[in-house]
Amino acid sequence: MREVAILEIGQTPVSEHWDKSLLEIAGEPILQIFEKTGLKTVDSIFVGNMMSGTANHQINLGAYVADWVGALNAEAVHVEAACSSGSAAFRAAFLAVSAGDVDTAIAVGVEKMTDSPSDEITAALATAADADYERDMGVSFVALNALLMRRYMEIYGWEKEHFAGFSINAHANGVHNPNARFNFPITREAYLKSALVADPINVLDAAGMGDGAAAVLLVPAEKLKNLPSRIKVIASSAATDTIAVQNRRDPLWLSAAEKSAKKAYQQARLGPEAIDLFEVHDAFTIIETLSLEACGFADRGKGPLLANEQEISPLGRIPLATMGGLKSRGHPVGATGMYQIVEAALQLKGLCGKNQVPGARIAMTQNIGGSGSNVYTHILSVES
Amino acid sequence: MREVAILEIGQTPVSEHWDKSLLEIAGEPILQIFEKTGLKTVDSIFVGNMMSGTANHQINLGAYVADWVGALNAEAVHVEAACSSGSAAFRAAFLAVSAGDVDTAIAVGVEKMTDSPSDEITAALATAADADYERDMGVSFVALNALLMRRYMEIYGWEKEHFAGFSINAHANGVHNPNARFNFPITREAYLKSALVADPINVLDAAGMGDGAAAVLLVPAEKLKNLPSRIKVIASSAATDTIAVQNRRDPLWLSAAEKSAKKAYQQARLGPEAIDLFEVHDAFTIIETLSLEACGFADRGKGPLLANEQEISPLGRIPLATMGGLKSRGHPVGATGMYQIVEAALQLKGLCGKNQVPGARIAMTQNIGGSGSNVYTHILSVES
Repeated sequence: MREVAILEIGQTPVSEHWDKSLLEIAGEPILQIFEKTGLKTVDSIFVGNMMSGTANHQINLGAYVADWVGALNAEAVHVEAACSSGSAAFRAAFLAVSAGDVDTAIAVGVEKMTDSPSDEITAALATAADADYERDMGVSFVALNALLMRRYMEIYGWEKEHFAGFSINAHANGVHNPNARFNFPITREAYLKSALVADPINVLDAAGMGDGAAAVLLVPAEKLKNLPSRIKVIASSAATDTIAVQNRRDPLWLSAAEKSAKKAYQQARLGPEAIDLFEVHDAFTIIETLSLEACGFADRGKGPLLANEQEISPLGRIPLATMGGLKSRGHPVGATGMYQIVEAALQLKGLCGKNQVPGARIAMTQNIGGSGSNVYTHILSVES
Repeated sequence: MREVAILEIGQTPVSEHWDKSLLEIAGEPILQIFEKTGLKTVDSIFVGNMMSGTANHQINLGAYVADWVGALNAEAVHVEAACSSGSAAFRAAFLAVSAGDVDTAIAVGVEKMTDSPSDEITAALATAADADYERDMGVSFVALNALLMRRYMEIYGWEKEHFAGFSINAHANGVHNPNARFNFPITREAYLKSALVADPINVLDAAGMGDGAAAVLLVPAEKLKNLPSRIKVIASSAATDTIAVQNRRDPLWLSAAEKSAKKAYQQARLGPEAIDLFEVHDAFTIIETLSLEACGFADRGKGPLLANEQEISPLGRIPLATMGGLKSRGHPVGATGMYQIVEAALQLKGLCGKNQVPGARIAMTQNIGGSGSNVYTHILSVES
């Protein structure tokens, strides 16, 4: 396997992009990369997207996007793993470069959700759950997470307020991210009082959707030997779990998140204590909590202990959602995994301004598809 | 790059599988492989599928299929490139094994189309074309191919009857394939008289859809050193073209097919004259003709010269569609590329009975997505 490095990044603000098509959104971060590097094309483009077939009536996004950015004749393909589609595209690009098959690969994650009525989006999101045993019972993704949160609170003895710190931290960080859609601070009181979506999950507990795209250019690490600092992908792993939550022995344990994190630690030859920041999948505070436990950042049932500034702010012990996370940046589902990678890379480059994690050298991202059915973990490091 | 070999294959008949779900169809060839090899899981599963989001209201097929076949915790992801989704999954599996990242990878292509009303399927197929400039103009895929065929006939001076030999050959071969959906012979007269779909394309010129799945297990070639014969993947390549046909300088030249074939020839260090059989993408005889020209099997504008038994039957100069092709086997869109690979492997194993190409040692497949917007070419060889 060749070592793989991130040469450049691009991203659009997460927003309601009424004036831009799916294609324009997807093209933007790629064209940013072309402009910054002087490249006009690449060998391969991997497009992570969850729901363009239903939300935008357009599939074949590989060719579609390659055509738009002028990368004619490049290899280009669409990769999908529900809400972890962005990371799935990143891993596909990583494998192609790692194999020595291609020398320049772009991974881009894109989603355009706000054009469609919200009931259509809720239905489109639900296609990532089990069609026969979850979706057809009328369980939306918020409802699935609400069931998990209620059970978690009962079994482990936590109250709703104990999760507030996660959302407060994300919003505090998002304030300084020009690409964040919900870039305002929130208080504990606001969190507790916000409108219920599916009890006990309320609006400020859940990540809002959005339109957006983020991309990176991957190349063989050996080609960047002379750069002052280079960001290497030191772990890339994926694992799955039952698609239906009801089929899990312990619904409160994300085994795919655990397996994927363990593989990643093994590849990078380090453990959770070596991670300087963690771009966590905070679609809901409950899934964030379960991810933290599965990855070894908290003991089982003790995740909410981390939900305070001392632990998770950029100056804390294990900084989370450092640019706002899904919660404050926004969660354009198929793009989210790529935003996580881009933000982790920015941290390692030391470009995060008021959100900078001092001396960050090792960053981890975990991107969760479905209710933990498909999980990707990546670890990046910077060398200088 | 590690060399990659095909250890085992599986396939379901292409049919109207009213009694089976998408999941049961997808699982069948994988469970066949598990039974034949004694394996109970693999490191990774790559699922090629085009339209399950719209036709079956189910995405996240990676985790969905892994869960069903009991490959819990395996990496599993959905790969899509319109009608070339099957080959895209194969290439993703190839890259993962080639990179040294995983040791056992299954690529499976699956599609379940016959549950849905045909207008919904026509609309779902059209999402692979340009949503703004083709689909919204009301151009279906058959219509796009009809426009190409009409233009080809006018520019190069061919009549409809000159394409008949392609369909006749495919059906003659399909008769002996127990997995073919349209396994009956057809005559030249029947071809000329069959009902028009979009002039000049008629029913017997077009591949019929179907439900089906096909899969292979890929492993590092070095692990099979002691096998009496092993099938190696000696080329894997992909290329794209403009998604809208109208944007091409010459709509009668499939530049992605050419680029992809040239890359494949370069990787395998051989030319078209070395290919013993070619599993061609005969969704329509016109796209087959253009593929043959782009790959160097015929001169530009001369493709129909090949449409006769001496050239393309299993005993001919360049055998095509040896198990019936898309035309007679049936074209479950996202599965087709994997059927091509499976059939090529069966030829190299010498297991094709009445359709066997004598002494076949090198087989090529080409799988075309959209109207030539996304093209995959693979070359397999057998060593003994």
